[in-house]
Formats: sequence, structure tokens, C-alpha cells
Amino acid sequence: MQEQNQTEREIKQIIDTCDRLIQAEKFDELVEFYTEDAVLVVKPGMEAHGREQIKQAFIKIAAYFDNSIKPIEGEMVYLIAGDTVLVLAQTFLEASEAAVENSEFSMERRATYVFKQVDGRWLCAIDNSYGTTLLEN
Amino acid sequence: MQEQNQTEREIKQIIDTCDRLIQAEKFDELVEFYTEDAVLVVKPGMEAHGREQIKQAFIKIAAYFDNSIKPIEGEMVYLIAGDTVLVLAQTFLEASEAAVENSEFSMERRATYVFKQVDGRWLCAIDNSYGTTLLEN
Repeated sequence: MQEQNQTEREIKQIIDTCDRLIQAEKFDELVEFYTEDAVLVVKPGMEAHGREQIKQAFIKIAAYFDNSIKPIEGEMVYLIAGDTVLVLAQTFLEASEAAVENSEFSMERRATYVFKQVDGRWLCAIDNSYGTTLLEN
Repeated sequence: MQEQNQTEREIKQIIDTCDRLIQAEKFDELVEFYTEDAVLVVKPGMEAHGREQIKQAFIKIAAYFDNSIKPIEGEMVYLIAGDTVLVLAQTFLEASEAAVENSEFSMERRATYVFKQVDGRWLCAIDNSYGTTLLEN
């Protein structure tokens, strides 16, 4: 249990760091927390693969939300299988009022993130903020 | 894209095989498709870790459903990050009428499975048939 808690703390810290980097639009630093072959679901049916594509996607997402994006995590569940962890997270996306009004996307989501340990560091391999709603498309 | 399709096919075949093994209650064969340190969400708040615990959990789940369980997958989405894959799956659990009536669990679910490639084989590391509904508990 102690080991589980430490893994949870380590991953939570990384998610919080990434949320701050997204808000600050420091995408070069952000993508260092993704694996080389990570996948980001940009929107249903559109994926970015690898750090360069993920960086470009975050630049577009930031512009889409009027450079006012602020992700916040709510309730979280960690399912830990050794060096592989599935995180389920209630995610709130804050943005400027105008950006939210213009957005076709839900600002409250149930996300699924997969982290894996690479050379002792936890990195995000799969970043899917849409969770199982992708099954609706 | 071709590589993605092949990975999808390989994993789909394994999921179908596992569904058949569950229905046939061949749990020794079944757990060979899980990693050594895999985690199975037995029910919200209860996890089985490792092959022996997972086998025992499946024996209990089968008994709970009156030894009449038959999992069927519907719509599926694969998010592929190299040797790590998140599968989102609409899952229907068929069982005898009496077992279904007595069950407190939903028979239609949106599951999240994480597979990883170990020595060239795809194995299930995280088996969470409850998907993001775990965030509700």
C-alpha cells in the first residue's frame, strides 16, 4: 500500500506540473513528460503521435481557447500495474468566457491517462481527456 | 496506419480469446494473458493484483453470476503508444436471467483495458471493466 501511495504521489505531482506548464504555454518543457511515442487525443478522431506532434497540437489547442486555458483535476483514481498506471481523472478545463462560449467541447471531462516508468521516471504514454466518450463517436 | 491496424487485430484476437476462456471458465489459461503484476478491478473499490489473485477473483465472479457469464465486446477504440495500448470498449455481460436479476452491477459497461507488449506478446496489464464510472464512488 505504501508503494502504491508513493506512485500515486509521484504521478499526481507530474500531472500538476503538466497542468501548470499547459497554462504557462511552456510546451517544450511539457512534452518532456511524454514518452517518445506517446499519443494525445486532440479531439475525437484526431490523434497526435510523438513529442513534436503533441507540442504542435498543444499550440493549436491554446490558440483555440484564446490562450486562456487552465486545466484542473478533480477526483482521481489510480490503477497501478507495476511500471504501468492508468489514471482516471475528473478534469475541468477553465478558459476565458469568450473561449468557453465558442467551444464545441465539454469543459468538464472524465479523462484517462496512461503513465509508464521509463529509466526511473514516470512519463505519460497516452493522454485521452475524452475518456470513454470516444465510444460515442 | 498498417502497423496500427495489425496491433488492433492482435489485441482484438486476444480479447476475444479471453472472453471465450471466461465463458468456458478456463481461468488458468486466461491468466496467462495478464502480466505478472496486472491489476483487475473486481468491483468498485476492490482490486485483484497478480495472476493468482486475478484467477481467484474470476472464480468468484463466475459463481456470483451463476456460472452463466458471457462477455461480449461492442464498439472499440484503440489508442496506441508503441508497446502500450489503451483499449476503450463497450462491453456487454450476458448471464442467466436469474443471475442478472440478482446482480447489483450494470451488464452494459464502457471498459478501459491497458495492454503492453512483453517479449513480443501483448498482455493485459490493467483490466477495468468499470471505466471512468469508478470516479463516481
